[in-house]
Amino acid sequence: MGLIVQKYGGTSVATLARIKNVADRVIKEYKKGNEIIVVVSAMGDTTDQLIKLIKGISSNPNPREVDMLLTTGEQVSIALLSMAIHDKGFPAISLTGSQVKIQTDDRHNQAEIMKIDNSRLRTELDEGKIVVVAGFQGVNSQDDFTTLGRGGSDTTTVALAAAMKADRCEIYSDVEGIYTTDPRIVPEAHKLEYISYDEMLEMANLGAEVLHPRAVELAKYYNLKLYIASSFNYKPGTIVRGVEEMEKRKNVTGVTRDEDEVKITMQGVPDQPGVAGRLFTALAEHDVNVDMIIQNLEYNNMNDITFTINKENLVRGKKVIHEIASKLGVKKIDIDKNVAKVSIVGAGMISTPGTAAKMFQVLGEEEINIQMITTSDIKVSCLIEKKYAEQAVKAIHQVFELGNAEDVEEKAR
Amino acid sequence: MGLIVQKYGGTSVATLARIKNVADRVIKEYKKGNEIIVVVSAMGDTTDQLIKLIKGISSNPNPREVDMLLTTGEQVSIALLSMAIHDKGFPAISLTGSQVKIQTDDRHNQAEIMKIDNSRLRTELDEGKIVVVAGFQGVNSQDDFTTLGRGGSDTTTVALAAAMKADRCEIYSDVEGIYTTDPRIVPEAHKLEYISYDEMLEMANLGAEVLHPRAVELAKYYNLKLYIASSFNYKPGTIVRGVEEMEKRKNVTGVTRDEDEVKITMQGVPDQPGVAGRLFTALAEHDVNVDMIIQNLEYNNMNDITFTINKENLVRGKKVIHEIASKLGVKKIDIDKNVAKVSIVGAGMISTPGTAAKMFQVLGEEEINIQMITTSDIKVSCLIEKKYAEQAVKAIHQVFELGNAEDVEEKAR
Repeated sequence: MGLIVQKYGGTSVATLARIKNVADRVIKEYKKGNEIIVVVSAMGDTTDQLIKLIKGISSNPNPREVDMLLTTGEQVSIALLSMAIHDKGFPAISLTGSQVKIQTDDRHNQAEIMKIDNSRLRTELDEGKIVVVAGFQGVNSQDDFTTLGRGGSDTTTVALAAAMKADRCEIYSDVEGIYTTDPRIVPEAHKLEYISYDEMLEMANLGAEVLHPRAVELAKYYNLKLYIASSFNYKPGTIVRGVEEMEKRKNVTGVTRDEDEVKITMQGVPDQPGVAGRLFTALAEHDVNVDMIIQNLEYNNMNDITFTINKENLVRGKKVIHEIASKLGVKKIDIDKNVAKVSIVGAGMISTPGTAAKMFQVLGEEEINIQMITTSDIKVSCLIEKKYAEQAVKAIHQVFELGNAEDVEEKAR
Repeated sequence: MGLIVQKYGGTSVATLARIKNVADRVIKEYKKGNEIIVVVSAMGDTTDQLIKLIKGISSNPNPREVDMLLTTGEQVSIALLSMAIHDKGFPAISLTGSQVKIQTDDRHNQAEIMKIDNSRLRTELDEGKIVVVAGFQGVNSQDDFTTLGRGGSDTTTVALAAAMKADRCEIYSDVEGIYTTDPRIVPEAHKLEYISYDEMLEMANLGAEVLHPRAVELAKYYNLKLYIASSFNYKPGTIVRGVEEMEKRKNVTGVTRDEDEVKITMQGVPDQPGVAGRLFTALAEHDVNVDMIIQNLEYNNMNDITFTINKENLVRGKKVIHEIASKLGVKKIDIDKNVAKVSIVGAGMISTPGTAAKMFQVLGEEEINIQMITTSDIKVSCLIEKKYAEQAVKAIHQVFELGNAEDVEEKAR
């Protein structure tokens, strides 16, 4: 018995039948004597539909009003879930971000949580109610509704669990847990029983879209264990937790693939001090994150600078790049969308020399050319031609023997 | 120049194009230097769609959660209208009932407004913003969202106008004003330039669905003039105002028809004291409003009691009636849905003898049998067979020469 914070994502509440299913799952834990806070996202593609409405009104919508509109999405889900719990004979109450008093800063559409007032939550729990909270939203100091942007509902969930000192924090979606790699590509991929925050951060950043990095960072900060599992069955999921608790691990935990990057090459950049600084500062000022960077000194004191940015920032990025390029007299800008980033992630990597080399070697054996490389303590990433991405993931997954581990589900039996 | 409170109903904001049209209308008044508060309803059939969702979850939904769900309807409209105003280059801000602090009692789904805190509205107006307020909703003392039930948005509008001491209160819908009778039945029907609160109340209660009686009562209480007109054109509408301002009037202002009543006859009710009292008290306790009542003493000290109730209360009403009937040993209950109530309304009626007689006479000439009659100071209603309703309205409209008046639109030219 204890306080459980559960989150159900958009797919898990996409239909009335699924909302009733979530009600059953919540009630199941409630009947065991637990206190329950449930965070829900907007139903299925509701947010997309609302965004479509916005586009019909304005190409440059007022951010405060966008939040006023978007927050209705979760408000619908919490009301319906709460009704469904009532209908099954159990007490529930829904609360918007504003009613909980999830205080955020003023940055509409991408607000950050400042503080959570837990008094209303505590009162409702003390009255024996299941509390259903709208994810993704908060309220600023002027009593205006804000939204948290990407990964908002995950962030709400972890923040609530931290504020309420929850005993368990569970994130349910249509994914059964964290896998060594995408099971759609590599059928031998297996579900991990545990993963560390840092590994999860790398996995999440690299395209395993189960849990938003922002929520992982928050969980890491509060050292809060997260349980990631499916809302459609009761198969065991994956626990995300601190590395200090890790048993001895394989040096590589997972393999990821990211096809959302674009490679940009600026040819003939004059080799003057501060040039790279000017370029990347300008990009940062326009909120364009740069991922991988290579600089080659060529003949005539001219450099080639190659870097990758996310596809979705390409329009904004291109503008900045062309401005800088014309100032510097850069001769040629090449944009290559035909790339994929393949990475290995593992907290054990730092203490295991040769891991990166093993990855490069297997790519070589597969005759896949490596265009760029970046490494960190727990990750090695290679940029390759997009058409080889699946082949690379399969080969790497095999060479690190990730498919041979005993399956979590097997263990659980 | 002054403070204008405008309301646009669901049909007026049913599409993005119509929302943009409303934005233009609002901006037009703003540009003249007026302060503007705009109250909007949910778009088109949004509320019906939300109610459909509820029905898919529960046959007996929790009233608080119903309000949590329904309030999203107006929240969508206010956000979109505010965005549309911004998009046209003018400052606007949307506020929910909770943000304005429209304080209501705790009766979810049918709350009454207790108090409006005008401080936030005043602040936003002082900053030069057009303030867009969600109709139909408020907040109770526990910070829970409430809805006002039928006529909610009209009521919000009048309450805001009263609280803000507005100079003008304008209700826009798809109807151009108040007519002497339904123009779809009687093409000679003409739009009234003025109507008194009491006449409007009778007209509204009797099925002229332009302005909810609840809002009219509130306007009467605060002696607040209402302007009723179309949101789709700029043709002059109808002003609803106090009778003391009325010029000399025709004794009959309008003719209405109501086909939502059901006639119930209980035959063989024992003629004991208190029998009628028991019946009508029981109905009132179950929120079944009784409209017309006739009691006939028959032979053997047995009565026939005939009365009408609204169709939508029939299921609930029948249950109560059958319970009472079996206690009293009533022999027969007859339910007749094949009736219509035709009425004349006019503040001048009270000082003009013979008005009712003239109505009965014309129905007689038309060979329409009158089943029941009720009268008040400003109204006479006759219950007749439904198939004669249109014929009756036409004949009455003609005999009181309502079609001959100079048309408001003519006057305005």
